[in-house]
Amino acid sequence: MAQNIYDQPEFFEGYSQLGRSVEGLAGAAEWPALQSMLPHMRDLRVVDLGCGFGWFCRWARAQGAAHVLGLDVSERMLGRARESTSDAAIRFEMRDLETLHLPAGQFDLTYSSLALHYIEDVGRLFAMIHRALVPGGRFVFSTEHPIYMAPSRPGWSVDGEGRRIWPLDSYLVEGRRTTDWLAPGVVKYHRTIGTTLNALVGCGFSIGHVEEFCPSAQQIAERPELAVEVDRPMFLLVAVGR
Amino acid sequence: MAQNIYDQPEFFEGYSQLGRSVEGLAGAAEWPALQSMLPHMRDLRVVDLGCGFGWFCRWARAQGAAHVLGLDVSERMLGRARESTSDAAIRFEMRDLETLHLPAGQFDLTYSSLALHYIEDVGRLFAMIHRALVPGGRFVFSTEHPIYMAPSRPGWSVDGEGRRIWPLDSYLVEGRRTTDWLAPGVVKYHRTIGTTLNALVGCGFSIGHVEEFCPSAQQIAERPELAVEVDRPMFLLVAVGR
Repeated sequence: MAQNIYDQPEFFEGYSQLGRSVEGLAGAAEWPALQSMLPHMRDLRVVDLGCGFGWFCRWARAQGAAHVLGLDVSERMLGRARESTSDAAIRFEMRDLETLHLPAGQFDLTYSSLALHYIEDVGRLFAMIHRALVPGGRFVFSTEHPIYMAPSRPGWSVDGEGRRIWPLDSYLVEGRRTTDWLAPGVVKYHRTIGTTLNALVGCGFSIGHVEEFCPSAQQIAERPELAVEVDRPMFLLVAVGR
Repeated sequence: MAQNIYDQPEFFEGYSQLGRSVEGLAGAAEWPALQSMLPHMRDLRVVDLGCGFGWFCRWARAQGAAHVLGLDVSERMLGRARESTSDAAIRFEMRDLETLHLPAGQFDLTYSSLALHYIEDVGRLFAMIHRALVPGGRFVFSTEHPIYMAPSRPGWSVDGEGRRIWPLDSYLVEGRRTTDWLAPGVVKYHRTIGTTLNALVGCGFSIGHVEEFCPSAQQIAERPELAVEVDRPMFLLVAVGR
């Protein structure tokens, strides 16, 4: 199964204090870009893979989704998610994306924010998502960008002339990466963009939009710490259709 | 118009001595990967954008293509290409890809090897290629990978612990890059993978295959200098369908 780092107290504590945990969707710099890739929510049957505290599930319902199923491997996050709403059309369940099975043809939209980089076998997951969607359904997701995940030392560095650089190596060596982020020993799986897209095409998806997220000039003006993000992309956003 | 660096004597001299110029397709490490993305050539009407010395044009005819049009901005390269064959079904013409117009619905395959990174306006070019292909036609191309093109100092570096790194910066700053390769002042245009793919989708192409080229273990065994290529991709290979 996927590592459940979110239920480790140290990680959960750190994660709970991130902007995206406290402020929800508005606290995630990539949300406006991801939102623009989503279909209109009205009457959609939605499943959110890696729902966390349930911010997207509640947003989708507020936008008119018929019902929303939020799945996560973390009991702690699901506990908070369940406390956050009494809406009977939102259901939260504990599931491991490595082994998840959903009923065929039951959803109009599969959404996933920053969960797929924890999954080793995305080919299996993508094929399952394809079956779970109705014809014409959409799958919209964000994941850590492979440039962000690849390096053996993933962190800003400085070159001989004092220039800030991202020390890329091992980009074409796919597979497991262990990093220290909020807690030591976080396990993620590095894949090139090509591998991810070919896995989607191989399942029968058609590629609709691929975005290597860049903060807007306005976002950088409001949050100057985002300026470094133009040097290497942190997030990959993808929208595909069944 | 696109910079015609290939007709500068210094550049032409250097380029003529590369493995891919002397040995042809077999001298290009990425050729087997690109070849596997091509349809069967038999009876196809083919256009090669940036045909150089005409290696691919002659190969396509040898594989049974009905006729092949090779286009390049370099008179020197076209001169060599024309000397290389007396096949009346291969035609070489001087054209600038920035302004190229092809007749509508006249080709089954558009091929382009390592030419598109010299082009500023690929959106215009992709739309023109889409019109020039018949329904079901294919567009298969290689281009320099954006990771290779992005940095302000594109060259291997060493980190504080002696580890080889690729000093990435400015990845999300698209546009003109001027580098010294074979000759000073070579002008290329950096685009993210997302920008390239979205431009193709926007023209009506469907994405078939995206590959960030990695030399095989056998290629590295035969040419040990290729081992460094696993640290950052040099070429992006794409196949799309109309």
